[in-house]
Amino acid sequence: MSKSENQSCLNLPRAVPVSTHLDDQIAHAIDTKTKPPGSLGRIEALALQIARVQKTLSPVMNTCSLTIFAADHGIANAGVSAFPQEVSGQMVLNFLAGGAAANVFANTQNIEVRVVDAGLAGEPLSHENLISRRIAAGTASFLDGPAMTGEQLSSCLDLGSELGRTAEGDAVAFGEMGIANTSSAALLAHKLTGQPLAQFVGRGTGVDDEGLVRKLAVLEKASARTAGQLNAGQVMAEYGGFEINMMAGAMLGAASTGRIVLVDGTIATAAAMAATHLLPAVREYLVFSHASGDAGHQAMIAALEVRPLLDLDLRLGEGTGALLAWPLLKCAAAMLCDMASFESAGVSGKA
Amino acid sequence: MSKSENQSCLNLPRAVPVSTHLDDQIAHAIDTKTKPPGSLGRIEALALQIARVQKTLSPVMNTCSLTIFAADHGIANAGVSAFPQEVSGQMVLNFLAGGAAANVFANTQNIEVRVVDAGLAGEPLSHENLISRRIAAGTASFLDGPAMTGEQLSSCLDLGSELGRTAEGDAVAFGEMGIANTSSAALLAHKLTGQPLAQFVGRGTGVDDEGLVRKLAVLEKASARTAGQLNAGQVMAEYGGFEINMMAGAMLGAASTGRIVLVDGTIATAAAMAATHLLPAVREYLVFSHASGDAGHQAMIAALEVRPLLDLDLRLGEGTGALLAWPLLKCAAAMLCDMASFESAGVSGKA
Repeated sequence: MSKSENQSCLNLPRAVPVSTHLDDQIAHAIDTKTKPPGSLGRIEALALQIARVQKTLSPVMNTCSLTIFAADHGIANAGVSAFPQEVSGQMVLNFLAGGAAANVFANTQNIEVRVVDAGLAGEPLSHENLISRRIAAGTASFLDGPAMTGEQLSSCLDLGSELGRTAEGDAVAFGEMGIANTSSAALLAHKLTGQPLAQFVGRGTGVDDEGLVRKLAVLEKASARTAGQLNAGQVMAEYGGFEINMMAGAMLGAASTGRIVLVDGTIATAAAMAATHLLPAVREYLVFSHASGDAGHQAMIAALEVRPLLDLDLRLGEGTGALLAWPLLKCAAAMLCDMASFESAGVSGKA
Repeated sequence: MSKSENQSCLNLPRAVPVSTHLDDQIAHAIDTKTKPPGSLGRIEALALQIARVQKTLSPVMNTCSLTIFAADHGIANAGVSAFPQEVSGQMVLNFLAGGAAANVFANTQNIEVRVVDAGLAGEPLSHENLISRRIAAGTASFLDGPAMTGEQLSSCLDLGSELGRTAEGDAVAFGEMGIANTSSAALLAHKLTGQPLAQFVGRGTGVDDEGLVRKLAVLEKASARTAGQLNAGQVMAEYGGFEINMMAGAMLGAASTGRIVLVDGTIATAAAMAATHLLPAVREYLVFSHASGDAGHQAMIAALEVRPLLDLDLRLGEGTGALLAWPLLKCAAAMLCDMASFESAGVSGKA
């Protein structure tokens, strides 16, 4: 057991073992399928990643689940969002009733949806299918002090890890709901990368020009509150949300079970950034599903130097982009498992 | 019956009727779903197109089928392809055995695949599941004269239309196989748009730098053979392939039954261009599924001023890109049918 695993109560993913032999075998298998080499483009790269993570030439990619983490943010009262805070809880009830976009995209593909209360404002919602992992009734406003305590951050990571490990499916997707959480995501990205805050601040669910100026001013003020370099844990406690930090834990937990994690948009990418700062090895398990229409997300994926699979101008969250990318994983794995080779099919190679 | 329908033996699609009332209703339904307006980006635009084509607020998008048209090209003997001509027939047997990428992507999604011999070189292949619509044993080389006669073109369109009308599914996808058919596609795009040939000439299945120079030289010579403006039918007879022209007919046939047509990559886009020149009304039924990694296709979609749904560096054909885009259609229709509205879910609107 490595030093870092000893020091943590989390189940941490190990780095995908470097096996030049297996990598060569996977690449050879992909190249000898009945198609010109490379002609399936990014599906081939995806198949390689899946096979490496599963350590096999015959990866299984039949099932996926979505876990939606919901929480509220103290910063919501500072006028950074186009929607009132009560929408977080209302949308949780909508998820539980099956009426949200995430439900519809999941149902269409037989994907199970779990909904977690990571810390919604107000009285706890009562619903038999709601998974309660409430840290508190919303974070504190990070304008005035840390969004959460170190203990609350630890709880987020521990509870998230367990939810990530127990999530069903050959791959797992995570979504979120939390009014004002693009503000939290922008500050996480800014503090983790050291790049200018403004580039990570987008319109979220749709603030207008005036609202965007106000949002940026509020977030600049919040950023100025902490001077100097913070480590990842400090950034997450100062500016994170319960749902974001719990999702980061869930990504680590899911990866520790050797599974691909489908990363959604702005919020999930902030969680993935945080998780990657905590443990760089998690990166190999992450599939970035879509480039959001939100300017902040565009800056995040540029900072991460990733090119997500889809580019559909989505800016909803909930895991919707991850769900839309799921069929690509299924097809990539099936390509490797089920396609004939030139030899087996009796097809001639290049002239 | 319109004049153009009287003059043709084809079943031609009618223009989607302009109904401001229905359009308003669809837009209103999309905007009042429980999400910020516009936050599902291109999925919303797709839902609108599907609903308009099906003339309903509750579009059905449960099933899809793929029809693969295969044929050979006289120009293949002029050294324009990386693969020998016999690969066309070998790949048809691979499709029939279920071993090709298109089969694998289709099986993963329960999509039925039909394979049509539109005119492969050599003796007819014998297989109980092969649909024989052979026009001839490959086209003539368009270096020396027209690829096909006007009568052969008519047969392609008629047979294709019937196959398009009888294709199963709420949406239909078309794929192709034909060594050297990117050469035919490049000339179709060049002659139909009047834009420079070179921009439409890509590496196809993978010619090297030297091969690309040779391919362009051969195609420039073929292009010079016909001077002056040709109409769409003349272009298709001079430079088309049996599989491409039959696919154009199939697109018209499928659209005439009021269904969405999923357009694949380079070859299918050339067929869509030709179909659109024959009958502009077909455009509203077409969903461009992906931007190919082939430079020629990039130029085609620029000429058409379309932004395909996916951008995965595919350059295989067979309908593979159309199959990967299919889940987006399902989700778009389900969004319109199954998502709750703000009112029905009791969710607050913008602050």
